Amino acid sequence: MRRVYMDHTAGMPIDERVLEIMIPYFTLNYGNPSSIHSFGNEPRRAIDEARSKIADLIGAEKKEEIIFTSGGTESNNLAIKGIAYRNKDKGQHIITSSIEHMSVVNTCKHLSKQGFKLTQLRVDKYGIVDTEVLKKEITDKTILVSIIYANGEIGTIEPIKEIGEIAHEKGAFFHVDAVAAAGQIPINVQDENIDLLSLSANDMYGPKGTGALYKKAGTPIMPIMQGGGQERGLRSGTENLPGIVGMGKAAELMKIEMKTEAERLSKLRDAFIKGVLERIPEAYLNGHSTMRLPNNVNVRFSYIEGESLILGLDMEGVACSSGSACTSKTLEPSHVLLAIGLAHEEAHGSLLFTLGRQNTKEDVKYVLGLLPGIVRRLRAISPLTPKDLVT
Amino acid sequence: MRRVYMDHTAGMPIDERVLEIMIPYFTLNYGNPSSIHSFGNEPRRAIDEARSKIADLIGAEKKEEIIFTSGGTESNNLAIKGIAYRNKDKGQHIITSSIEHMSVVNTCKHLSKQGFKLTQLRVDKYGIVDTEVLKKEITDKTILVSIIYANGEIGTIEPIKEIGEIAHEKGAFFHVDAVAAAGQIPINVQDENIDLLSLSANDMYGPKGTGALYKKAGTPIMPIMQGGGQERGLRSGTENLPGIVGMGKAAELMKIEMKTEAERLSKLRDAFIKGVLERIPEAYLNGHSTMRLPNNVNVRFSYIEGESLILGLDMEGVACSSGSACTSKTLEPSHVLLAIGLAHEEAHGSLLFTLGRQNTKEDVKYVLGLLPGIVRRLRAISPLTPKDLVT
Repeated sequence: MRRVYMDHTAGMPIDERVLEIMIPYFTLNYGNPSSIHSFGNEPRRAIDEARSKIADLIGAEKKEEIIFTSGGTESNNLAIKGIAYRNKDKGQHIITSSIEHMSVVNTCKHLSKQGFKLTQLRVDKYGIVDTEVLKKEITDKTILVSIIYANGEIGTIEPIKEIGEIAHEKGAFFHVDAVAAAGQIPINVQDENIDLLSLSANDMYGPKGTGALYKKAGTPIMPIMQGGGQERGLRSGTENLPGIVGMGKAAELMKIEMKTEAERLSKLRDAFIKGVLERIPEAYLNGHSTMRLPNNVNVRFSYIEGESLILGLDMEGVACSSGSACTSKTLEPSHVLLAIGLAHEEAHGSLLFTLGRQNTKEDVKYVLGLLPGIVRRLRAISPLTPKDLVT
Repeated sequence: MRRVYMDHTAGMPIDERVLEIMIPYFTLNYGNPSSIHSFGNEPRRAIDEARSKIADLIGAEKKEEIIFTSGGTESNNLAIKGIAYRNKDKGQHIITSSIEHMSVVNTCKHLSKQGFKLTQLRVDKYGIVDTEVLKKEITDKTILVSIIYANGEIGTIEPIKEIGEIAHEKGAFFHVDAVAAAGQIPINVQDENIDLLSLSANDMYGPKGTGALYKKAGTPIMPIMQGGGQERGLRSGTENLPGIVGMGKAAELMKIEMKTEAERLSKLRDAFIKGVLERIPEAYLNGHSTMRLPNNVNVRFSYIEGESLILGLDMEGVACSSGSACTSKTLEPSHVLLAIGLAHEEAHGSLLFTLGRQNTKEDVKYVLGLLPGIVRRLRAISPLTPKDLVT
């Protein structure tokens, strides 16, 4: 049976070139970068190089602005709590959106229990943050605006530069969760008024368990982990050397190959979306048709459940998702799909395909060949389906 | 030139058998364990298996008592803040010792700034916690006793079981930082009255960037990172699958090979210590001679600086340390050495060798051949050295 993996936001295979460069840091260069003997030299150099490569990918001014973490979730926690705890005397108001990743949603919820005031900006039906509403909500007490660069579930890309401008006009810091966007589309933290930016290595075909936070020089944050004072005191814990080296290489490869790959994926994506909407009645696209990540296809089908569709496709070797993998085990509908105005049953009838390097035209053709039949069969047994659709 | 690495607390090479088992989780089994399609099955199974192996190494009752983290520092932060924030209504008193790792020291310091009351138990000249003092200091308001299983710098093993008994008599939870001890000496969390135990994969020849916290079923803690709710809500963030699988294998190998290796290392250690004390005048052992980790040699030499010794040995291919790698970049003397009663200059004149699998009798012989000459040369140029020692 053909195996078609289209769930790249949930997990990505590592790039073989990334793994290759990591191996010696497991076996040979295992020294501690803080050591003063010469076993510490190569680790120190390697971490420095990785920092530069990541700074390069996102247009950071200095490599020292990159702090290594254990992943996107930790980066989001560090950015948001870091700003909140360090700047609470200035103000306790945080603005975010209704389509953030759970690590932003729940970190903000955690802070609101401690007295921070939270404003969650609503988005339009495409998932785009309304900058006019932001202008109304932001005050002198707003210390942080945290908006996702592009949502991994519906693929919608936000007007980041403009949001950053508005934040800065009021003196608020601007944090951007770029886990789903980095390596897919160009990012420039300096041009786009970004003070803090969260990244995850695995979302760029790098290793799991490694991430980074860009922190513009001079942005004051408080660490969330205490210890030996690594990463200039902002992230204690012995450095994950192979992971860091791997993330650096992944960022380097993304910078080189992103443009070509994004063009290829956009074409696949558009053919996929067109094929679904043409072949299946009452099928709809979730998110925006053009302000969209190149790898993201999110479609919904009336009268049926996404979970059944996933299992039906899984039996044919196709892996996709009903939304964020983090929440796919719960029965709750995706908060992102509800935020763009879908009813519960519409959210439940949605299916997320995230394409990746190994996906081809033939994969898309294969899925397009299967999907109409599975949808038809599920609709046939659904009590909600109107009679004329079943025949 | 011979290369002799004797700085295993700072960083360990990965066991080749561990790396081998990790590779497919980078390249093939890259699915997300939370996914409902079949790409999630093998990751779920593998994490479960790793959990069992770690539970096995430390005598935990259930595999569900293991929470994966990004390393020892995070495990210590999670255990201590987790208990503190969750149980603060019961009491706000925390007891620890003066020879804890920086991730315990600084986490407790952080909490004391927030109003928690901290008692740091003094230790004797060997670094052993006095349980009589503990009995006097512990009250009904003590929510946590956190003591290191064995200190990685001076190697001293603490009377863990007895400390746990005292903690439990007063209704306090007992956390143990076992990062340096696990895999070196047998640990049994159930026999030893341990509620929470911190582990690091790299300290068992596993991968960097992976750790675990044992949390006895029913012990209430609050998570320190918010997000998708992985690890039963206690540690959000996509699981570091290769790291977790590697840590499981490392724990399995430790369980099988620990006894034989500990006997071999203890012999090397004792020969090393004996050799140093015999060959070099005014050389002293730091820590206890028998209640000591099998891989730990910490010696001090009057009139000279540890840093110069490290550099002198480094030029001959030998890697060792002046204390914790985390703090070796600072000019502060080790707080552990000061806690056992050494004067600043004695602490500064100390040298830490931590032995490992690749070290042999020949390595020890090599270092014993070099060390007296280096000490003599450094003493000859030190203004502190008495004349009769130089000739």
